[in-house]
Amino acid sequence: MTTFGTILSSVHVKKPRIHCITNYVTANDCANILLACGASPIMADAPEESSEITALCSGLVINLGTLSDKRIEAMLLSGKKANEMGIPVVLDPVGAGASKFRTNAASRLLSEVKFSVIRGNLSEIKVLAGERYTSHGVDTADTIDPESMTGAIELAKSFSRKFNAVTVITGEKDIVSDTERTFIISNGHPIMSRITGCGCMLSSLTAAFLAADGNEPLTAAAAAVCTMDICGEIGAKLMKTSDGNAGCRSHIIDAVFNLRGQELDRQAKINII
Amino acid sequence: MTTFGTILSSVHVKKPRIHCITNYVTANDCANILLACGASPIMADAPEESSEITALCSGLVINLGTLSDKRIEAMLLSGKKANEMGIPVVLDPVGAGASKFRTNAASRLLSEVKFSVIRGNLSEIKVLAGERYTSHGVDTADTIDPESMTGAIELAKSFSRKFNAVTVITGEKDIVSDTERTFIISNGHPIMSRITGCGCMLSSLTAAFLAADGNEPLTAAAAAVCTMDICGEIGAKLMKTSDGNAGCRSHIIDAVFNLRGQELDRQAKINII
Amino acid sequence: MTTFGTILSSVHVKKPRIHCITNYVTANDCANILLACGASPIMADAPEESSEITALCSGLVINLGTLSDKRIEAMLLSGKKANEMGIPVVLDPVGAGASKFRTNAASRLLSEVKFSVIRGNLSEIKVLAGERYTSHGVDTADTIDPESMTGAIELAKSFSRKFNAVTVITGEKDIVSDTERTFIISNGHPIMSRITGCGCMLSSLTAAFLAADGNEPLTAAAAAVCTMDICGEIGAKLMKTSDGNAGCRSHIIDAVFNLRGQELDRQAKINII
Repeated sequence: MTTFGTILSSVHVKKPRIHCITNYVTANDCANILLACGASPIMADAPEESSEITALCSGLVINLGTLSDKRIEAMLLSGKKANEMGIPVVLDPVGAGASKFRTNAASRLLSEVKFSVIRGNLSEIKVLAGERYTSHGVDTADTIDPESMTGAIELAKSFSRKFNAVTVITGEKDIVSDTERTFIISNGHPIMSRITGCGCMLSSLTAAFLAADGNEPLTAAAAAVCTMDICGEIGAKLMKTSDGNAGCRSHIIDAVFNLRGQELDRQAKINII
Repeated sequence: MTTFGTILSSVHVKKPRIHCITNYVTANDCANILLACGASPIMADAPEESSEITALCSGLVINLGTLSDKRIEAMLLSGKKANEMGIPVVLDPVGAGASKFRTNAASRLLSEVKFSVIRGNLSEIKVLAGERYTSHGVDTADTIDPESMTGAIELAKSFSRKFNAVTVITGEKDIVSDTERTFIISNGHPIMSRITGCGCMLSSLTAAFLAADGNEPLTAAAAAVCTMDICGEIGAKLMKTSDGNAGCRSHIIDAVFNLRGQELDRQAKINII
Repeated sequence: MTTFGTILSSVHVKKPRIHCITNYVTANDCANILLACGASPIMADAPEESSEITALCSGLVINLGTLSDKRIEAMLLSGKKANEMGIPVVLDPVGAGASKFRTNAASRLLSEVKFSVIRGNLSEIKVLAGERYTSHGVDTADTIDPESMTGAIELAKSFSRKFNAVTVITGEKDIVSDTERTFIISNGHPIMSRITGCGCMLSSLTAAFLAADGNEPLTAAAAAVCTMDICGEIGAKLMKTSDGNAGCRSHIIDAVFNLRGQELDRQAKINII
């Protein structure tokens, strides 16, 4: 089996170019974390150019934060182009359930574009699975804890079956699942929930990992989650007493910049079931 | 009287969700400073969803930076929804007076939406009060110094009467006033004027403070101003010789993350008149 | 001859107000680096207000990142207003060649607006010169190394003739040229290519330098390039072992904040041919 470390090393070597159609709140962090892992970001969200930009890339991220009608058009065009080309597409359904506009956009994307990976929190995935109609917003809501774990794994599996994609549900522990196997990842740090864009950055990393090593999307997605989580731990450990979430954000991106494959494998806390 | 410290503690406990319709230049900083104080940000500016997003929140910030026609629509829809719900709305009229587009948008918002707090620099407030027609831009212009203080307090009071809102005028010293009482806040540090988004971040904090403790909007707004100013002082003190405005920006958000109510009360330099 | 240091000192004294029509990925960094060098940024990209905003400023930057149809309109209106006023305009053709949308926008801007300085990487400038039809994206592509140097200098000169502007081609070494003289700048650090927005920040700085000292656009542009490069070196030197591209980005802006004219002249590694 490919280890997480070899996939990270692949990203370092192949430097995949990733097209991000993403929100303006965390676009800068997404660009810098892609550069940190050795990938090369292109941000473009105008429907007039989006599919041409995708055509230059080896991975695509579609992130629903600060959604707009124009950006939905661009997402559909780029998603279809990526599918034609056979490159991986990651969906981050930020805020699905928070408004009909976002839920409908997510549904339409899921029906017209084939995604390799869909990454959200538990409530976003529940909304897209049809299990609930409203999320409590962008970053709160149901979390994955020991109690909800079994149900969340079942949800991830059935969601993967429905959309023929790897499902990533992030929370206290993270679930990365296809229809058969599930990685449960215990790395990470609570401060990550107080840094805007940790989810968005993870989705961007995921596209880079898939683009660099497309053979096992499940393993590549799990490697990305584990990378982000371990860098969250490193970032938290680097904090001085006067540091807070802003300092830690910078430490996390820097940790990605410095992380090598061997260290990733050494720090990973995973269960495969 | 509620102290500033008890209001900050309320934010820590209640973790209010704040909807920000704000410019893309400082949206990331606004999100991180809200997370730093314990609140939870949602950024959304499409008219297709804005009022639904507001409905999930307990506070709303409307910031006129990088204004667009679509964003004005969203502001009006969300502002009205917030008024229906009875949640606080903060207006940050960035650049009012710099263009007819911004001045007109601010005027329309002021006539169709009831704001709890309006926060600007002296020239922005003068423009909206009809005292002058052009501002010299976004961050310069008239400042509050000993000479202009008396006039500025009068302006704040009459502005508060006109719009039935708390008025915050930030400058070398800050004025927070309703129709009767005025807080003059002497905290803060000159480097804050060289960090983009200090005003925007303050407006976001203000919404969180009002959402957590709505009984005395005047005191809550003054507590937010004082928090931002004290964190500016702490941030400036944390600077090493090689640090500049970028390092200090991070220190300020980190200081908000670490500030506790008792320390806020201990450091506050206020006069109430 | 005016030294680079005297131009930087001019920026410190004159504090020029710069209108940026720029992408949302790096707008925050552009605002902070302008504040760092003593200038004052205004970001505004709505066609409804853009020319009025330009009218308040003494320099304009037009940056094609995350381009949209609305932003092109604003660029044309502001560019023409700046030309009427006789203030400097800098073009950063981010991603020219990556899509017809961007290439066409750049061409239209070049035909309807007179630019003082055009700054891009080698492939962007080649595309605009009609030498090649596709760029490989945003940050990769042809670089300036010893082998390509002679051709790149010729390109810069002929490009300057064609558009009656100073041409800046950034790479391993940087070329700043008008129709006659060429500065070759050997400062800089490789990590700059792994920090999003280094090019955008440089274009913003360039506008501030031209606005502060308009007598010799060639020298002012070279001074801006040299400032950015030296601050890249300082930023890289400040990195601790745990630092990466995010920490370094902050160090670079901080270095601009702290750089004085004398130090700039002392560190500059330039050849004039």
